[in-house]
Amino acid sequence: MPKNRLEAFSDGVLAIIITIMVLELKVPHGTEPAALRPLLPVFLSYVLSFVYVGIYWNNHHHMLHATGRVSGSVLWANLHLLFWLSLVPFVTGWMGENHFAAIPVALYGVVLLMAAIAYWILQARIIAAEGPESRLARATRHDVKGRISPVLYLIAIGAAFIDTLISGAIYAAIALMWLVPDRRIERTLAGPAASPPG
Amino acid sequence: MPKNRLEAFSDGVLAIIITIMVLELKVPHGTEPAALRPLLPVFLSYVLSFVYVGIYWNNHHHMLHATGRVSGSVLWANLHLLFWLSLVPFVTGWMGENHFAAIPVALYGVVLLMAAIAYWILQARIIAAEGPESRLARATRHDVKGRISPVLYLIAIGAAFIDTLISGAIYAAIALMWLVPDRRIERTLAGPAASPPG
Amino acid sequence: MPKNRLEAFSDGVLAIIITIMVLELKVPHGTEPAALRPLLPVFLSYVLSFVYVGIYWNNHHHMLHATGRVSGSVLWANLHLLFWLSLVPFVTGWMGENHFAAIPVALYGVVLLMAAIAYWILQARIIAAEGPESRLARATRHDVKGRISPVLYLIAIGAAFIDTLISGAIYAAIALMWLVPDRRIERTLAGPAASPPG
Amino acid sequence: MPKNRLEAFSDGVLAIIITIMVLELKVPHGTEPAALRPLLPVFLSYVLSFVYVGIYWNNHHHMLHATGRVSGSVLWANLHLLFWLSLVPFVTGWMGENHFAAIPVALYGVVLLMAAIAYWILQARIIAAEGPESRLARATRHDVKGRISPVLYLIAIGAAFIDTLISGAIYAAIALMWLVPDRRIERTLAGPAASPPG
Repeated sequence: MPKNRLEAFSDGVLAIIITIMVLELKVPHGTEPAALRPLLPVFLSYVLSFVYVGIYWNNHHHMLHATGRVSGSVLWANLHLLFWLSLVPFVTGWMGENHFAAIPVALYGVVLLMAAIAYWILQARIIAAEGPESRLARATRHDVKGRISPVLYLIAIGAAFIDTLISGAIYAAIALMWLVPDRRIERTLAGPAASPPG
Repeated sequence: MPKNRLEAFSDGVLAIIITIMVLELKVPHGTEPAALRPLLPVFLSYVLSFVYVGIYWNNHHHMLHATGRVSGSVLWANLHLLFWLSLVPFVTGWMGENHFAAIPVALYGVVLLMAAIAYWILQARIIAAEGPESRLARATRHDVKGRISPVLYLIAIGAAFIDTLISGAIYAAIALMWLVPDRRIERTLAGPAASPPG
Repeated sequence: MPKNRLEAFSDGVLAIIITIMVLELKVPHGTEPAALRPLLPVFLSYVLSFVYVGIYWNNHHHMLHATGRVSGSVLWANLHLLFWLSLVPFVTGWMGENHFAAIPVALYGVVLLMAAIAYWILQARIIAAEGPESRLARATRHDVKGRISPVLYLIAIGAAFIDTLISGAIYAAIALMWLVPDRRIERTLAGPAASPPG
Repeated sequence: MPKNRLEAFSDGVLAIIITIMVLELKVPHGTEPAALRPLLPVFLSYVLSFVYVGIYWNNHHHMLHATGRVSGSVLWANLHLLFWLSLVPFVTGWMGENHFAAIPVALYGVVLLMAAIAYWILQARIIAAEGPESRLARATRHDVKGRISPVLYLIAIGAAFIDTLISGAIYAAIALMWLVPDRRIERTLAGPAASPPG
């Protein structure tokens, strides 16, 4: 099957997820700057989640760019990823409206962890179809970020019960780690489309 | 007419349907795990409906992949399907917020039944245009799932007035039945695009 | 400029308009059939507006299919049409929640009338670019429906102050008139893409 | 990387932003024309923001039409632009519901200013990739509008603390300035795709 509808549907869902989060920023009644102060934690969670969904869109874009055609199991692995990402607005709102309380901050990490696992499953399904010498397989062979992120999420989830500031710092650090461009992977992906003989 | 805009519009509507359902998961005020307990039935209905809309997107994807060009009546049959699917968030919310009471559970089944009928009409309109020897006609000739689903929905609707657990189990079973990949159809669809002489 | 992004953006906006209308169907608190009764006028307005937005999507689809490339003024004429259609959820909700009171029913007609005028402007801008012998110009030369609709909207707006049932009947009649396929136009559009020498 | 998914995702986000703003137009309870009067400032802000998002979509469309392929930094510059535009519904609602009070009117300008800066960064990233003799570089060399807008936003933000009518007039004037078609740029963009020797 061609991949264009998978991309279009994912783009649609990710575009909606990233945009409806802003609906949690409820219009305040007052008109002074002080009226905006209670919105600050909501706004900060929004920024964090916007960056995360942006990273997922970006990586999804790269991954599918390196993919030829998709199978039925890839469609479902993709829906599984979208399911966990669709919960991001909920945990973002819960975390933001409760000023980064322990349980909401931990649940935020759980959803991010599940999304990371779902992304890894999707990648594994695509590589299983594309073959071990495909561009995607080679580009992700030394995928340090993808391996370190789940560990960091687990630490952040545990840390939420000690100090949520630590969790927040870890979430921000993971986002930053992904934001920094990865020249090596871009180079591999930009390489010849045909798989080398190995 | 080319089918690309039909696909794009359907992708958009399905992406929005699958995503706005999460808005029913209202951010709770408390921050303890107990605050999430009242959300459990809402969450379970969300998961069920997410899988159903995912199945429809998946099947729609397969069906249109096997379709050449579309006529005016196909456009309307498609809108008819989207209409019933657009009611899924409403019945999902009603069912979830009322902890699976009889009438909401039955209405959930009615909307799924109507969507199944609408899907069948859309398929029939496409086959009418494509011809009885088209790939889609051959792939759906022995469509057991498509024939058994409406019967199961009817049973589940009736069972809601006896025990909603039965209905819930049937809805979950239908979803599982569709989730299991159907190698035979995939093989037929993956076959030669040109219709055999018959 | 190519027309694909104009189509994609319009598909997105129309998909959202048609879907967010269902959010007006607020989940009721009771679980008996009687709990759904107050939603009946909201549901009826939803069905009517769903059909109208569906008609606009359908006609938009046909019109752009018959169009080559688009100019800057066409982009703005298209945004103008989307603006009026974006008000449909608001007037639908106002009309439905007020059980078809006079002013909301009249305003519903005003928005439909403005959308019809905006559609006509968009069509005129495209024909101005495509030339009087283009497929679209020929297909719309004897556009009876497009000319009769604004007159009917005006009558329905006035009738709202006498009996809103008349207005409702007219709105439904206009929708039905557009639903009935127009073989002649489809045939012209299906004809040769190249403009005849005139 | 090809640019089609960047366009599709941006179209999706912009379509949602432009459409969810209408959700701020809350259905009033009364049915007389007077019931609509409190909505007038909300409606006026909606119209203004609709035009602004429309301008951004239009310019984004033109800019990417003149672009070949996109790099990773362009993807992030684009997400940065979408972030600021995603705040437009919030500031639109705050400004409209508070009848154009000073702080909301100023914040509206701040978000527009940040979006203008983000647009400029995106344009600069694309030009850096396309080269100084690319069509986009030539088309924006004498970009008076792009340079004058930030200055006007700054004046409008300051003026909000003297008289918000001045700010509103400036916002409307900037929108009008962008609405007026810019024949020179359209001509340059319509020119030969290959870059001239300079």
